[in-house]
Amino acid sequence: MKPITVIRKEHFNAAHRLHNPKWDDKTNKEVFGKCNNPNFHGHNYDLEVMVSGMLNQETGYLMDMKILSSIIKNQVINYMDHKNLNLDVDEFKTLNPTAENIAIVIFERIKAQLPNNLDLKIRLYETQRNIVEYPA
Amino acid sequence: MKPITVIRKEHFNAAHRLHNPKWDDKTNKEVFGKCNNPNFHGHNYDLEVMVSGMLNQETGYLMDMKILSSIIKNQVINYMDHKNLNLDVDEFKTLNPTAENIAIVIFERIKAQLPNNLDLKIRLYETQRNIVEYPA
Amino acid sequence: MKPITVIRKEHFNAAHRLHNPKWDDKTNKEVFGKCNNPNFHGHNYDLEVMVSGMLNQETGYLMDMKILSSIIKNQVINYMDHKNLNLDVDEFKTLNPTAENIAIVIFERIKAQLPNNLDLKIRLYETQRNIVEYPA
Amino acid sequence: MKPITVIRKEHFNAAHRLHNPKWDDKTNKEVFGKCNNPNFHGHNYDLEVMVSGMLNQETGYLMDMKILSSIIKNQVINYMDHKNLNLDVDEFKTLNPTAENIAIVIFERIKAQLPNNLDLKIRLYETQRNIVEYPA
Amino acid sequence: MKPITVIRKEHFNAAHRLHNPKWDDKTNKEVFGKCNNPNFHGHNYDLEVMVSGMLNQETGYLMDMKILSSIIKNQVINYMDHKNLNLDVDEFKTLNPTAENIAIVIFERIKAQLPNNLDLKIRLYETQRNIVEYPA
Amino acid sequence: MKPITVIRKEHFNAAHRLHNPKWDDKTNKEVFGKCNNPNFHGHNYDLEVMVSGMLNQETGYLMDMKILSSIIKNQVINYMDHKNLNLDVDEFKTLNPTAENIAIVIFERIKAQLPNNLDLKIRLYETQRNIVEYPA
Repeated sequence: MKPITVIRKEHFNAAHRLHNPKWDDKTNKEVFGKCNNPNFHGHNYDLEVMVSGMLNQETGYLMDMKILSSIIKNQVINYMDHKNLNLDVDEFKTLNPTAENIAIVIFERIKAQLPNNLDLKIRLYETQRNIVEYPA
Repeated sequence: MKPITVIRKEHFNAAHRLHNPKWDDKTNKEVFGKCNNPNFHGHNYDLEVMVSGMLNQETGYLMDMKILSSIIKNQVINYMDHKNLNLDVDEFKTLNPTAENIAIVIFERIKAQLPNNLDLKIRLYETQRNIVEYPA
Repeated sequence: MKPITVIRKEHFNAAHRLHNPKWDDKTNKEVFGKCNNPNFHGHNYDLEVMVSGMLNQETGYLMDMKILSSIIKNQVINYMDHKNLNLDVDEFKTLNPTAENIAIVIFERIKAQLPNNLDLKIRLYETQRNIVEYPA
Repeated sequence: MKPITVIRKEHFNAAHRLHNPKWDDKTNKEVFGKCNNPNFHGHNYDLEVMVSGMLNQETGYLMDMKILSSIIKNQVINYMDHKNLNLDVDEFKTLNPTAENIAIVIFERIKAQLPNNLDLKIRLYETQRNIVEYPA
Repeated sequence: MKPITVIRKEHFNAAHRLHNPKWDDKTNKEVFGKCNNPNFHGHNYDLEVMVSGMLNQETGYLMDMKILSSIIKNQVINYMDHKNLNLDVDEFKTLNPTAENIAIVIFERIKAQLPNNLDLKIRLYETQRNIVEYPA
Repeated sequence: MKPITVIRKEHFNAAHRLHNPKWDDKTNKEVFGKCNNPNFHGHNYDLEVMVSGMLNQETGYLMDMKILSSIIKNQVINYMDHKNLNLDVDEFKTLNPTAENIAIVIFERIKAQLPNNLDLKIRLYETQRNIVEYPA
C-alpha cells in the first residue's frame, strides 16, 4: 500500500494591502502597484488543504474529514475570515500578506495541529488566476 | 427574428464594510455581523453584463464585445478594482456597499453608456454562493 | 427603482431511484433506464434559491442572506442531505424523485417560509449537465 | 402547477473565422480584428439547451433527458463538432459564424425537432467570458 | 526529453454507505455520522485519471486519449455508474466505500489495463470540497 | 524555509489539425479520427504556468506575477491566440500540434525567459476533460 492524499476545500474573505514598511512610498508603489492602495482592497480566498499519509484500514479514512475541517475552521477561517489581514491578524502585523506569505502562515498554523506522520501542503487561490502552493 | 442577449464576464477585487451611519454601533453589529468589521474585509467580484436587443445583420453581432468590454473597463474595472469601495468610490460614500447596491450602481454607470434600444441586466457574484441580479 | 434578485447557493447529497409504482417493472426499466436501479444511486445536488422583490433602503438588502440561508438549511439541507429521498423524505414516498419533482418540493417548502411580497425561483443541478428551474 | 424548465449541457469544438464577404478586407479587419484571421481560429463551445413546458405527471419529467440529449447530438454535435464552421457547415457558407448566429442556427435546428407545446432557449458559451442567449 | 502527464476527466453517480461490519451500530454512527445512514446517500463522483510516461514521437501522444477513455469506461463507468457501491460492486461487499478506498479500487482496475512503462495516479472528487489522490 | 510554487492562469483560442505528414491519409484518419479534419477545428486552451523556487523575503513574492504574466503574454498569448497553430506558428509547421506538443513548446518558450534558479511546469487544458502536464 502506498501513501494517499486527502484534500479539503474551504473559503474565506479578507481585506489586505501589500506594503514593505522598510521601503519608502515610491518604492512600495513601484513594486506593488495598485495592491499597495493604503485603503486596502480584498479577495475571496479559496483554500485547499492537502494531507498525505498511510490509510487507516479500520475506517478507510486517511483522517476524518470532519476533524480536518474543524482544524481548518479553528486555525484559519475563524482567524482570517471577514478580517483585515494587515490590521486584524497577528502574523501580518510584521509580515507582508502576499498570497505566498498567507499560504506559509496557514501551513504553519495547520501543521502544528496535525500528527507528525502526516504530510501537509497548502494551495491558496487569491483569484481564479493567481494561485500559490506551499511547499512546492 | 427575436431579440438576443450577449453576456460579458469581467472581474474586480475590492474591500468594503457594511454599515448604516444612521444606526448606532450595536444595531450595525446586529444587522451586518462580521461584514460590519470597521477595518474592512474584501471580495473577488465576478461581474456578468447582459445586453439585449435586435441583431445587427451586417456584423452578426448584437454589439461589438470589444466595445462592451471597453465600457465595462472604463465604468467599472478602472473605477472599483483594487479599491476600498467605502473610501475610494464616490457612490458608496453615502450608500451602503451591499452586493445589491453595488449591482445597482454598476447598472446605472453602464446604462448611461449604452444606446437606448439595448436592454441591460447585471449579475454580480460577491462570492460563489451569494449572487445578485438587477433588475430582477 | 426596479425589483432585484438575490441568489443563494447551497449543496446536499442524496440517494434516489426513479420509479412509478403504477407501472410494471418492464415499463419502469424502459422509461427510467439505469436510474431505475432498485438498489438506488445518488447525486451531489447543487441548489440555487432565487428570491426577488424590492430593496430595503435601510439595510441595502433585499433580505438578509443569513436568514435565507437559515430557511434553506431548515427546509432543505437538514431534511434531504445524506438521505435516501425515496425512503427517508415524506414527499417522495408517493412522488417520483425526478430532478423536476425535487425542485418543485423545494420550491413549496421554501415558499411557505417567505413573506408574500417576495417571488421565488429554484434552480437545481442534478449533475453539472442536467439542470431544472421551477417555475420556468 | 406552473411551467418548468429543464436544461441540458453539451459541448463541441470547432474552427471559425468572422468575415462579411460584402466588405473589403480592410473593413473586415477593422470590424472583426484577430477574429478575421483567414487561417481560422477555434473554440470549445459549451451549449445549454433550455426547454420549458408543463410537467408530465406520469413520468415526473418535462421530457426524457435522453431524448433531448439525442436531439442535441443529432442536430448539433454530430453536425458541428470538430468541424470548420465556415467550410463544413451549410448554414455558415453564407452566414457569418458569430456566437449570436451560431446560437440562432442551433435554436432553429433543435426547435424543428421539439413538440410545439415546448418553449426553447439556447445559451452558448464561446469562451468563459463571451456568452449568448437566444431568444433574449 | 522529460516524462509528460495526460489527464482524462470522467464522471459517474453512485449511492453508498460508510459502515464497518466489525463494529457495533453505535461505533459506526459515532465514526461515520450521517454517512452511516442505512438507507444510503449518494454522490456525483468526478474522476481524473493521470497517466505519465515518455511521449510517442510518431503520434505526438503519450497515449491515445480515446483508448484511455475506453479503459475508464470499461473499468469504472460501466462498473460503478448509477450503482449502489455497497450492494452492486464486488470490491465493496467487504471494503468500506470511502473516497479513499474508491480511489484505490479505481487505481487497481485501471493499472491492470495499462502498459508497465506508464505511471498512474487517480484524483477523485466525492464532492467539490472533499477530494482524494492515490498514490500521494 | 522550503521552496514555494506560484501559478498563473491564462487563456488563448486557436485552430489546429492533428496530422503526421510522413503517413498516408488512411493512417492519419485511423490514428487521429475527427481531429484530422483537413479544414481544422479549434479549442479554448486554458494554460497554467507553475513556477517554483525560494521566496524573496523583501517582497514576499516568489516572482512578481505582473512579470510572469507579461512573459506569458509575449511568449504564448500574442504568439498563439486566435491563430491557426499548423499554419501560423513556426514550431508546428513540422511538429504535430497535439496538446502534449503544445505544452512542450510553451514550456521551452517560457523557460528561456526565466532565471535559472526557478523551476517550471506547464498544465494545458485542451478541453475541460483533456489535460496535459509537462514535465510530469
